[in-house]
Amino acid sequence: MNIQIQNADILLFDRGEKPFLRRCDLFIREGCIAGIGEAPADFTADRVLDGTHRLAMPGLINCHTHAYMTLMRNIADDLAFDEWLFGNISPIEDKLIAEDGYWGSLLGCMEMLRSGTTCFLDMHMFPGQSARAARESGMRAAISRGLVGSGDDEGGTRRLHEALSEMEEAKGDSRLSFLLAPHAIYTCDEAYLRRVTQAAKEQGLRLHIHVSESRNEIENAKKQFGASPVEYLARIGLFDVPTVAAHCVHLSEEDIDILAEKGVSAATNPVSNCKLANGFAPIPKLLAHGVNVCLGTDGAASNNTLNLFREMGFVSLVHKGVTGDPLAVGAADTLKMATLAGARALGLEKTIGSIEVGKRADIVLLNTDCPQFSPRNNLISALAYSANGSEVDTVLVDGEIVLEHRAFPGIDEERVRYEVNRITEKFGKQE
Amino acid sequence: MNIQIQNADILLFDRGEKPFLRRCDLFIREGCIAGIGEAPADFTADRVLDGTHRLAMPGLINCHTHAYMTLMRNIADDLAFDEWLFGNISPIEDKLIAEDGYWGSLLGCMEMLRSGTTCFLDMHMFPGQSARAARESGMRAAISRGLVGSGDDEGGTRRLHEALSEMEEAKGDSRLSFLLAPHAIYTCDEAYLRRVTQAAKEQGLRLHIHVSESRNEIENAKKQFGASPVEYLARIGLFDVPTVAAHCVHLSEEDIDILAEKGVSAATNPVSNCKLANGFAPIPKLLAHGVNVCLGTDGAASNNTLNLFREMGFVSLVHKGVTGDPLAVGAADTLKMATLAGARALGLEKTIGSIEVGKRADIVLLNTDCPQFSPRNNLISALAYSANGSEVDTVLVDGEIVLEHRAFPGIDEERVRYEVNRITEKFGKQE
Repeated sequence: MNIQIQNADILLFDRGEKPFLRRCDLFIREGCIAGIGEAPADFTADRVLDGTHRLAMPGLINCHTHAYMTLMRNIADDLAFDEWLFGNISPIEDKLIAEDGYWGSLLGCMEMLRSGTTCFLDMHMFPGQSARAARESGMRAAISRGLVGSGDDEGGTRRLHEALSEMEEAKGDSRLSFLLAPHAIYTCDEAYLRRVTQAAKEQGLRLHIHVSESRNEIENAKKQFGASPVEYLARIGLFDVPTVAAHCVHLSEEDIDILAEKGVSAATNPVSNCKLANGFAPIPKLLAHGVNVCLGTDGAASNNTLNLFREMGFVSLVHKGVTGDPLAVGAADTLKMATLAGARALGLEKTIGSIEVGKRADIVLLNTDCPQFSPRNNLISALAYSANGSEVDTVLVDGEIVLEHRAFPGIDEERVRYEVNRITEKFGKQE
Repeated sequence: MNIQIQNADILLFDRGEKPFLRRCDLFIREGCIAGIGEAPADFTADRVLDGTHRLAMPGLINCHTHAYMTLMRNIADDLAFDEWLFGNISPIEDKLIAEDGYWGSLLGCMEMLRSGTTCFLDMHMFPGQSARAARESGMRAAISRGLVGSGDDEGGTRRLHEALSEMEEAKGDSRLSFLLAPHAIYTCDEAYLRRVTQAAKEQGLRLHIHVSESRNEIENAKKQFGASPVEYLARIGLFDVPTVAAHCVHLSEEDIDILAEKGVSAATNPVSNCKLANGFAPIPKLLAHGVNVCLGTDGAASNNTLNLFREMGFVSLVHKGVTGDPLAVGAADTLKMATLAGARALGLEKTIGSIEVGKRADIVLLNTDCPQFSPRNNLISALAYSANGSEVDTVLVDGEIVLEHRAFPGIDEERVRYEVNRITEKFGKQE
């Protein structure tokens, strides 16, 4: 289908002081951005979308989440980490069946699309369910089965096998890509980490792993391995595969050098890191060292929302507060973290992350007729600091309209709410 | 007018583990909450509002803002403080006329109502304009003319006179109350501070002042007065009048003891404090010492929004991050900061701040049919951590419907956007 977005203000990176092309048309052919301002040859629109008072921007990319965990939203807050995890989250996860994971993931997709996210990197525990939910919602997704194991134990072997067969089943779906996700250094032993790394090399896959999230993790790594988590992973060769390292809160100067040198992408999750009291990642330093810093929400159990607009404002603000430098992590930096850097982390920088002719049309239209976008001053600031995600009006993924005027053409929203409430009843925690 | 809200979930503080009365009716007579669950005698509803899938909560109270500064939203971000203030904000303020202040304030009121705030404490520079905007929008407001001066200089005298005559003009409007607002210790000298304090005592008014916002302010106070700002203000007797102290970022143990002892309300503005890189107020300590901590957004030039839902999530999250304690500033604490504590700060605790029979009906209805409120787990968590303000559907102030299904019955929204854009053109900063 060919789509023409008429008369929108279009965010184009690298236009310096004037990043917005005002009142301009955008032409989409077969899922691809085919023209900006000027129609490509022989273009006929099948659909015309009115972009008046709308701002067109690249879809946001959530580089670390567990979409199914929306089921555990608002269920275990204001708790110490051990009570949160072992007293609440783990016992609930034990009660979940695969179908539950599907409904939770679909709710996550709805929430992400409604707040302008078009692509997410998921770490999940129910093979096939994230892919199913992404497909149902029309989202682009990078999917990774969470892998826990030691040596060649049965569970670890099964999980790795499930990860690989999930990929087979999804072959041919161009919106889905896959990574392998060894969960963390405290849930995978060295042999298993090496095994997963080797599998990634053989399959040409990227890796996705939790790294240096809590103070405990660092202390234990030093005791157990005589090295920081980053040093340890570098030593065993994991970073020889392109990796998305989620969290990266507690890093030494040496750790930062390693991440920069190895081209590891750091997916920061500032809300989750605050909620679980893990602290503040050294984002300004990572950026200064040229590390590719992308942005994630983590799961809804450690964030309460999957809203990247909230995460953008938050990451900018807290680092100004922490460093005492009002110039730290500026509005343009944070916008790029949530778009271009995310695409780079997933190896999709030629496909998505910006509005450019030739890229796939993952585009968000925001309604700027709202108090928080008035008056019409710096729109980069407005996106990073004023928006809360509710301005998102219409969303395209791969040139397909997956949200129109805040409604989902392909999802029965009421059914999803019904199902997640039904599932949550078995946790015995509802009010 | 008598209003019946049918079938809503009603937030009542102090119901312990179950703060919500489920599917219940709320009866409002002559602006007053007349019945919860049970209709008062001889009640006939003039209007019935459907509360199905709606959550009724007390209106939020913004305890520190400069509403007219929405005009400067997104105009000067990611700048060092001096460049922000002297290079951008002050020169723009010099270009403003009173009428500009009115439109900016009205935009601020719209934004606040849309995000669930029903009452705000304003510090302004255009007498009459905040009151005019509040009246137009239907908001409740506590209004304070910003006072700058030394001894008995002409400007300071004029401003104090304006503040007092503004009150005279507004007499009889029960939604408006007034404070006197000596701006700060670095813009008012001791004689002027004493003079304003004396005027407050004579008129039975509260005070509103910026206190201990930046590191500079502390250092200068120590040099100039041999005391911290809090010690200095206590010494000259300002805190003998009930005071709302905005910011309170940099406090010693002694400062905290003084605030507690003198019953000063601390209005924390965490987003603004981060944006201007002033740091983090010691909120958990203030709460532990029994200080009345309320919540503000500050002006849109140092925040980018006037959305107290964002501020609630933010204040809870950053203090968990800063203290390393995941229990710091819990969801219920932050909700009370934004409601009951705000009412107390303004001396309105018998009038607003909670849903109780006998209080005025300042009530917000949120639409919970949205992904971020699904599944329906802990609703206090949902309000503090998941909500972004866009869930606000209908708002009552003093029993009057001032927002209905997100539309303003009494405001021409398009006109306001037009006017603020027209005004902003003269700053030469629009894209």
